[in-house]
Amino acid sequence: MYQKIISLSTHSRNGLYDITSMIENAVKESGIKNGIASVYARGSTCAIMIQENWDESVQNDVITLLNKLVPHGVWEHDRQDNNGDAHLKAGIVGPSETIPVVDNKLGLSTWQNIFFCEFDGPRNRREIMITVLGEK
Amino acid sequence: MYQKIISLSTHSRNGLYDITSMIENAVKESGIKNGIASVYARGSTCAIMIQENWDESVQNDVITLLNKLVPHGVWEHDRQDNNGDAHLKAGIVGPSETIPVVDNKLGLSTWQNIFFCEFDGPRNRREIMITVLGEK
Amino acid sequence: MYQKIISLSTHSRNGLYDITSMIENAVKESGIKNGIASVYARGSTCAIMIQENWDESVQNDVITLLNKLVPHGVWEHDRQDNNGDAHLKAGIVGPSETIPVVDNKLGLSTWQNIFFCEFDGPRNRREIMITVLGEK
Repeated sequence: MYQKIISLSTHSRNGLYDITSMIENAVKESGIKNGIASVYARGSTCAIMIQENWDESVQNDVITLLNKLVPHGVWEHDRQDNNGDAHLKAGIVGPSETIPVVDNKLGLSTWQNIFFCEFDGPRNRREIMITVLGEK
Repeated sequence: MYQKIISLSTHSRNGLYDITSMIENAVKESGIKNGIASVYARGSTCAIMIQENWDESVQNDVITLLNKLVPHGVWEHDRQDNNGDAHLKAGIVGPSETIPVVDNKLGLSTWQNIFFCEFDGPRNRREIMITVLGEK
Repeated sequence: MYQKIISLSTHSRNGLYDITSMIENAVKESGIKNGIASVYARGSTCAIMIQENWDESVQNDVITLLNKLVPHGVWEHDRQDNNGDAHLKAGIVGPSETIPVVDNKLGLSTWQNIFFCEFDGPRNRREIMITVLGEK
């Protein structure tokens, strides 16, 4: 068992941030050869998504799609915080992804990367908790 | 390893039920200090969502959004059970969330709560299976 | 800890393939009595969804819904690969599901089956990685 919090700052209201190398480093540090890496976004207006990272096109498309499906400013929760859309996007995408660990590396396919999704930025500090379980 | 089924009854066709304290109790009972808690909804018309619970606004907004994206009564499956929308909502949100366990507590952020999502209620008994893995 | 890659070929652009029996066999082979099975789709244009399999109606409805929410041919990424919709569907549904293992069997409810979702087929070989963790 190995557990670590990584953090990042975000720079706009909506944005995807590639955290693959940070997770890969944590897996390496864990010394665990085969098992799983659980990646968890600690916030109710952010999420984790596995997605391609060839260029920024898919990341932009994710934001365009979510803005279309979940428009800003039309939710009951907006009377409190004006961020109802951020909560809904976070709930649909979800804060947790569980990725296999194979030979002390993430078992991602060629085009899979791990993204932190910000839906209510900018934020100085967002936390992602990584838990690695398995055999050394 | 610790495993437990918790159950609840639901009172309307669509509804979100905060099960955080039940999961927190199971984690406590497990005696596991650091690791993960896997929360799994046992039903193909229900799901698990991590979401804010300041008041009922976000919960209402989740139902409003899903009813808009997945309208009732227009699906091929409705010829069998008239609950095609419930299956689709359950499939999109998903039955499983994996949450870190830190110092024998759920590693949720301040505003994250765990909700059971009912999409085809009311039901007398819905089951959620909790599995806690890690180190004591 | 037990880990295995299973593979399948897909026959159309969009399609759901029931892989429950393949996962159930892997759990049996693992010898693990109680714990979790992590199911992971290795591709950025495919996903895993838990869904009913009474007949093909829900599977068809999943494809109809996703085609409506995420139309083909209108995305920035389409200038590269013409498969922006496939990436977005994969990102929303997600590549990972974690299912409890109880008495060396999957802890699914009666109507829950595990589906591999193809969004950019046909493909000769798609890989799913299964990791089983727990106690023998």
